[in-house]
Amino acid sequence: MKLSHRITNINGGGSDGWDVFLKARGMIAEGVAVTELTIGEHDIGTAAPILQEMHRSAMGGHTGYAMVPGINALRDTVAARVQARTGVPTTRDNVIITPGGQAALFAAHTAVCDSGDTALYVDPYYATYPGTIRAVGAVPQSVPALADNAFQPRAKDIAAAAEQGAASLLINSPNNPTGVVYSRDTLQGIADVCKAHDLWLISDEVYDTQVWDGEHISPRALPDMAERTLVVGSMSKSHAMTGSRCGWIVGPEEVIGNLVNLATNTTYGVPGYIQDAASFALNQGPEVEAEVAEPFRRRREKAMEVLAAQNTVTLVPAQGAMYLMLDIRATGQSGDDFANTLLDAHHIAVMPGESFGQAAAGHIRVAMTIDDDRFIAALKTLCAFAADLAKK
Amino acid sequence: MKLSHRITNINGGGSDGWDVFLKARGMIAEGVAVTELTIGEHDIGTAAPILQEMHRSAMGGHTGYAMVPGINALRDTVAARVQARTGVPTTRDNVIITPGGQAALFAAHTAVCDSGDTALYVDPYYATYPGTIRAVGAVPQSVPALADNAFQPRAKDIAAAAEQGAASLLINSPNNPTGVVYSRDTLQGIADVCKAHDLWLISDEVYDTQVWDGEHISPRALPDMAERTLVVGSMSKSHAMTGSRCGWIVGPEEVIGNLVNLATNTTYGVPGYIQDAASFALNQGPEVEAEVAEPFRRRREKAMEVLAAQNTVTLVPAQGAMYLMLDIRATGQSGDDFANTLLDAHHIAVMPGESFGQAAAGHIRVAMTIDDDRFIAALKTLCAFAADLAKK
Ligand SMILES: Cc1ncc(COP(=O)(O)O)c(C=O)c1O
Ligand SMILES: Cc1ncc(COP(=O)(O)O)c(C=O)c1O
Repeated sequence: MKLSHRITNINGGGSDGWDVFLKARGMIAEGVAVTELTIGEHDIGTAAPILQEMHRSAMGGHTGYAMVPGINALRDTVAARVQARTGVPTTRDNVIITPGGQAALFAAHTAVCDSGDTALYVDPYYATYPGTIRAVGAVPQSVPALADNAFQPRAKDIAAAAEQGAASLLINSPNNPTGVVYSRDTLQGIADVCKAHDLWLISDEVYDTQVWDGEHISPRALPDMAERTLVVGSMSKSHAMTGSRCGWIVGPEEVIGNLVNLATNTTYGVPGYIQDAASFALNQGPEVEAEVAEPFRRRREKAMEVLAAQNTVTLVPAQGAMYLMLDIRATGQSGDDFANTLLDAHHIAVMPGESFGQAAAGHIRVAMTIDDDRFIAALKTLCAFAADLAKK
Repeated sequence: MKLSHRITNINGGGSDGWDVFLKARGMIAEGVAVTELTIGEHDIGTAAPILQEMHRSAMGGHTGYAMVPGINALRDTVAARVQARTGVPTTRDNVIITPGGQAALFAAHTAVCDSGDTALYVDPYYATYPGTIRAVGAVPQSVPALADNAFQPRAKDIAAAAEQGAASLLINSPNNPTGVVYSRDTLQGIADVCKAHDLWLISDEVYDTQVWDGEHISPRALPDMAERTLVVGSMSKSHAMTGSRCGWIVGPEEVIGNLVNLATNTTYGVPGYIQDAASFALNQGPEVEAEVAEPFRRRREKAMEVLAAQNTVTLVPAQGAMYLMLDIRATGQSGDDFANTLLDAHHIAVMPGESFGQAAAGHIRVAMTIDDDRFIAALKTLCAFAADLAKK
């Protein structure tokens, strides 16, 4: 029986660079004690007060179909939050609640890309980006953000890609996998290209509460950009609610109206009790978000000390998100080889830069998602391992 | 800014026949006491033990990303359930958990239809069907199930549509809106057409626990059909978990593998604590399901007495699901006009048959989703109103 081209093409053929990850999982299944620095997820669960609010809502009867665009309280809260951060007037009509940031990425691309349209994204990229674009039936086209430019994408590279014709550009700051936060210059350059080439800008801001250096700027805040920007947000990273699948898109009213039609036919809303919990969580204010981000901030500080004490591995400016990107080119190995041999020799699993695109070749991504002591010990082992390789 | 043709086309242009529904909502908002017989949702919430299990799971730490295909326990439970009902060997590899039956309908069509492919569905239909197909980028083509044939679709009508070329056929039994359960003959005829024309069969069985007359047969059980059938199921109707957004697709392993890739890029799984609750609920056994279905069974019985006592309104065989389909052609009115004047005259809201397609013209759908006394009183008023109209 024939399946659709679209679905069979999602992975785009070829290796997806997740071999090391799967090998680590296999070792763990066989009982090997692997130190996993691969996962983009907190080592804590969702806080009890949030879960208690969820239960209160459910027991209170909020178990029926919720309104498809989202409950008013949550839409209002998200709108107020985005308005506070951007200065752009934002109401509930600019907001749709989605079952997670991933669903928001898919819906945003569906809104602006038809089958066969080119959708640009920046390499290195979060693992699902090209698959999300292919799932929409659009054609993913990457724009490199070079290591030499501290992984900040350059306007001229985006413009060169846009000149071939494209419907949209997907960016992500704070960035997974690089940990880089886009500068105002970078974002203004992107905005200019979007306006010049009439591109929709899809701005994935799911790490916006995890900024260690510099400031998070949403392109929605830049002049004349609100009308062509779709901001993707999520409770996953900010409130350790990854499993709850609750995110949003903020954009022009007309787009949101269309996205509601799409949601009616694709997901039919998000559980009301989860939205109540999310609304409660967001209204706890920034202290709670800072608390959730704190372990990553702390581990980053400690990691910088470890890294300062050696000179084989170079840290890409770790400005945000829960990852460190390490340049291991001094070892003479590819990210893939390095990650593989590190896993074999020391049972430490990291992600090869290559799993996030070619621009991150010769790098590895280290997730700061295990407890401080094990994290620092693993990082020290990794550095010593790299130093040995470099000597050979 | 240009939106995709796909998203702007979801509603297909033209009125969607939901004017009466919106008018009723408007009246309620203005404080009018409207008796709503429009909604496909239980008048009870999700049972407390299910919600307690959910809370237990969440507090126990099941708040992180769940495995994208679904947790093993729930996939196993769904597989066992489907195997018990069909006799077809079914394992977790035949099952993907989705955020609701609606998401399953969308994913199933995405798996088998490319942009521009024709997807068949039966008229009268559940409101989202054509929109779901358009959201996939496919072209919806309806096949009438005629009132004269008790709303059972005929193989020859499906074959005639399939001859123009189609990728899939979507059916729904027990049926919303008609309340009809497809007979073995109907289903065998459908199966034969699917095999002759190499169609995928998408079988929406979300009402499979609400059968009042006859038996529910899944086409997955018919000879050589498991390999071309995608069964859509949901916790929504069987366990009054509409808001929880938990459903599934059961189908061939290869399709499920592809659907997992799709889910990775569109929804990224379903909350683990919701899956734990669903798994718990399904393992309560059929008594719990019978309890959830009981009010509809009871109201149907009572309604049949009321309807037997008059002869203007004719009940379409009410074999399953939470709706009664009433033939009001003896009043000389369309379903639309009848529903509108009934709402004006008596503040009773029902759905015009026309909102579910042309095959249900001259009918109205009455949801049995309010308490017995109000339901029966409203039905009596409706019958008297119809009798008056018929006399005019
Ligand atoms: C950059 C980026 N965007 C989106 C997501 C998806 O997040 P959510 O859990 O909200 O679907 C992730 C998750 O790792 C991510 O890293
Ligand atoms: C026939 C039919 N299919 C699917 C659905 C969607 O159900 P779910 O809540 O599982 O998305 C409904 C809901 O009314 C329905 O009537």
